[in-house]
Amino acid sequence: RQPSRIPQELGSESSMSPIRDQLYAISRRKKSILCVAADVESAEELMSIAEDVGPHICVLKLHADIIRDWATETPKRLQEIAARHDFLLFEDRKFADIGSTVVAQFGSGTHRIASWAHITNAHALPGPGVIDGLRQACESSGRMVGLLLVAQMSSKGNLIDGRYTESCLRMARDAFPFCIGFIAQERMDPTGKLFVMAPGVQLEAKGDGLGQQYNTPEHLLKEKGVDFLIVGRGIYAAPEPWQGRTKVQGTILEYPSIEYRETLF
Amino acid sequence: RQPSRIPQELGSESSMSPIRDQLYAISRRKKSILCVAADVESAEELMSIAEDVGPHICVLKLHADIIRDWATETPKRLQEIAARHDFLLFEDRKFADIGSTVVAQFGSGTHRIASWAHITNAHALPGPGVIDGLRQACESSGRMVGLLLVAQMSSKGNLIDGRYTESCLRMARDAFPFCIGFIAQERMDPTGKLFVMAPGVQLEAKGDGLGQQYNTPEHLLKEKGVDFLIVGRGIYAAPEPWQGRTKVQGTILEYPSIEYRETLF
Repeated sequence: RQPSRIPQELGSESSMSPIRDQLYAISRRKKSILCVAADVESAEELMSIAEDVGPHICVLKLHADIIRDWATETPKRLQEIAARHDFLLFEDRKFADIGSTVVAQFGSGTHRIASWAHITNAHALPGPGVIDGLRQACESSGRMVGLLLVAQMSSKGNLIDGRYTESCLRMARDAFPFCIGFIAQERMDPTGKLFVMAPGVQLEAKGDGLGQQYNTPEHLLKEKGVDFLIVGRGIYAAPEPWQGRTKVQGTILEYPSIEYRETLF
Repeated sequence: RQPSRIPQELGSESSMSPIRDQLYAISRRKKSILCVAADVESAEELMSIAEDVGPHICVLKLHADIIRDWATETPKRLQEIAARHDFLLFEDRKFADIGSTVVAQFGSGTHRIASWAHITNAHALPGPGVIDGLRQACESSGRMVGLLLVAQMSSKGNLIDGRYTESCLRMARDAFPFCIGFIAQERMDPTGKLFVMAPGVQLEAKGDGLGQQYNTPEHLLKEKGVDFLIVGRGIYAAPEPWQGRTKVQGTILEYPSIEYRETLF
C-alpha cells in the first residue's frame, strides 16, 4: 500500500503544469478518468470516434502517423472537437531518438505534433536528451505540451526491467513540470505529482482460472493505484453501440474511493 | 579481437536476405561503406543532397517524419535517384511500439514507409513483437525491407546496458534474415552475418588530450569492427563543398584491410 497523497501538496504543485491542471479539471468536471485510444487509419473515422466518445472522456489518444488521409486541417478539426467536448489530445508517438532528432520529429514534418497535441509520450531509452529535445520543440512552438514517459510495457519479452523503470522515474522527476506522468501499469510516484495512465485495460473481467483478475479497471485503480485508464476497441468497436456501454462507463466512473479522487473530489 | 569471418559461410548465408545481398553488392561496386544521414526538413533539400552524395554512398538515411513538404510523389522521386546512383534508402524511424501498432506505423499513414524504404530500424525495447509487426507489414506490402535493431546508443545517460544489448543480439539472430544488422558502435555478431552501421562518426580526428581517438573512421573500422559508417552534416554541410571532401571520402574508402572487406573484395 503506497502512502496517501497530501491534498495541500497536490494543490500547490499542480499550478506548475498547466496541462496537468487542465487534465485534472476536466476529470473533475466530467467525473471521468477515461482515455480512449483511437487506433484507426482514417481521419473521418477518427473524427467520428472523437464525436462519439468525446462527452465521456478526458483524453483521446491517437497515432497521427497511421492516418492515411491526414490533412493540413485535421489538427484544427480535432482541436475543435476536443474543445467542444472538453477533452485533451494525446499523440502516442513514443519518441525514442536523440535530442536533436526529436526536436524536428516533434515540431516539424507533416504532422507538426507540437502545434496541436496537448500530451505526447517518449521512451526514456535515449536518456535525458530526448526530454530536452521535446521541451525545446515546445518552447519553439510557443505552446506547452505535457510529456508522459513510458515506464513499463506490457508486451511479451519487452526489455524494461526494474532498473530501467527506476531511471525513468528519476528522469521524469527531474523533468517536472514538463513531464507530468507515466505510461505504466502501476503507481510510480508515491506523491502522485506524476500521474499514471494505464494501457491494456480489459473491460470484461477475465481470470486465469485461479481466481486472479488482471488489468480490470478495479485491479488497476484499487490495487495498482493508477490514475487514468486507456481503453481502445473495447469501447469504440464494442459489439453493442457506445450507448450500450453504460456499464463500462459506470465501472470506470464509480471510483470515488481511489486516493487521487479522495483528494480531488 | 573477434574471430575472422569465414567467406564460405558468408556466401552461403547472404542469399537468404536479398536486401543484405543488394547492400553488399553496392558496397563492392562503389567501393564505399558510407551511409549519409540527411537530417533535413525540406524534400527539395533532401533530393539535392541525394543527387550530390549519391555517387559515393551505399545508403541514404533519412527521417521522413521531419520533412515539412513530404508529398505523395516524394518516395518515387527518392527511389528514382537511389536507383540511378545505386544506393539504398534507410528510413531511420526507430520503431518502438507494440506489434499491432507498428504494423500500421510501418505500412500506413502519410509516409507508407514499407512501400518505399529498403532499410528501416527499430528499438528492441518492446520485445520480439515489434519485429513481428514490422515483418507482417512487409508481407502485406509485398516487398521486403531489411531491419536493423538499435543495439547501442551514444546519447548521454541512455538506458541501454550490456544485458539490453545481449537481448537485442538474441532477438536479431532469431529474426534473421528479416533483421540484417544493428545500429551500434562495435561489432555485435562475430560471424558478421548481422552487420553493424555506426552513427556518430567524427570525420576530423578529435582527441581527449590524452592521446585517445574516439569514433573516427579508423577507430570504428579497425578497432571496433563496424561495417558501415553513418556520417551526416560532416559531409553534406561541410564548410568546403562535397567535391572538397575527397579526403573524407578517401579516408572512408581506404579500408581494404577490415575483415569483411578482406572476404568481399
